[in-house]
Amino acid sequence: MAIRYPNGKKFNPSVSSTKKKSYDYSFSNRGKSLEDELNDTNEYYLAHGLAVIHKKPVPIQIVNVRYPARSAAVITEAYFRTPSTTDYNGVWNGYYVDFEAKETKNKTSLPLQNIHMHQVQHMKQVIDQSGLAFFIVNFTLLDRYFLLPFEEFYPLWQRMEEGGRKSITLSEIEERSIEINTGFHPRLDYIQAVADWIKRKTD
Amino acid sequence: MAIRYPNGKKFNPSVSSTKKKSYDYSFSNRGKSLEDELNDTNEYYLAHGLAVIHKKPVPIQIVNVRYPARSAAVITEAYFRTPSTTDYNGVWNGYYVDFEAKETKNKTSLPLQNIHMHQVQHMKQVIDQSGLAFFIVNFTLLDRYFLLPFEEFYPLWQRMEEGGRKSITLSEIEERSIEINTGFHPRLDYIQAVADWIKRKTD
Repeated sequence: MAIRYPNGKKFNPSVSSTKKKSYDYSFSNRGKSLEDELNDTNEYYLAHGLAVIHKKPVPIQIVNVRYPARSAAVITEAYFRTPSTTDYNGVWNGYYVDFEAKETKNKTSLPLQNIHMHQVQHMKQVIDQSGLAFFIVNFTLLDRYFLLPFEEFYPLWQRMEEGGRKSITLSEIEERSIEINTGFHPRLDYIQAVADWIKRKTD
Repeated sequence: MAIRYPNGKKFNPSVSSTKKKSYDYSFSNRGKSLEDELNDTNEYYLAHGLAVIHKKPVPIQIVNVRYPARSAAVITEAYFRTPSTTDYNGVWNGYYVDFEAKETKNKTSLPLQNIHMHQVQHMKQVIDQSGLAFFIVNFTLLDRYFLLPFEEFYPLWQRMEEGGRKSITLSEIEERSIEINTGFHPRLDYIQAVADWIKRKTD
């Protein structure tokens, strides 16, 4: 049985328990989740002094902890909580950066049902404080990655709230996003996409 | 037996499991930890559109999860991990804000043994990306709170690394910090202290 977080993501204990990961030197992303690719990219950014961006820990409500003699504390009862923010944030070049990563196996649109109201509210609050907020969207079967700025996403979210379609089409994403180039190091250079987006806004 | 996180902080399940907290309308902080006061302050900032700053969840390594029929998933074995960043971050007025909260019962100095190398490294990385990094220091028995900018803290940390004293004296903190005013709403207006600090730097 697949183990899932409340947000529908698969729980992968072997990934979350690996503290240091070796880089994937193959050009393909086969077998790597978007989360893995972003963690690799963030490690690369950190190691090269390019940005300081971390994934937030999954929030857990702890109910019971046991203290075996001469051993580390063991949490014996705990529950997943719904996160009140996005998964990633940090700082790049004086900018506050905040984003959520979304994968879809759909080839023609991004369903909105996996995006939660509280995430959208949080990103709205970030924008209001002059931070940068966006989605990183991966169409896994197309092997394409997009940086979708919150400002471009929000009207399509409102369209759904007003009774319109419950997804964003690929062509809408192509129009409103910056496509992220994939490579070796870093794997997903989304900071370059952020820089391109800022340049586009200020030009 | 007191339950403690790896960083030495007490684990208080009744606090971490309370999602919505009512504000403390008394002027005193009796019975409230610095963490509670900061969470109240951050809720106030968020509710009033003044800043978007959250405490990061405690990182947990999950080993076992059980799925009872028709119930929420239960984590039955997990361990505390050492955080790789500070506890709080977010955005205020276009600035990336990152800090660590430290309480001491000492009346004359802040011991440095509770500040970890990885936190100092993280704050250094933040500064290098033009973010704001600082400590909020509470001398609990004096009922005084200080915002100590990382730039002012770092030479005293280096002094320790070079074999010097393993603490920062209260008078050094008074010289190098902005004292935080306590009040009703918000309880600890540290954003005002940040604004004063920025003004001081640019004047």
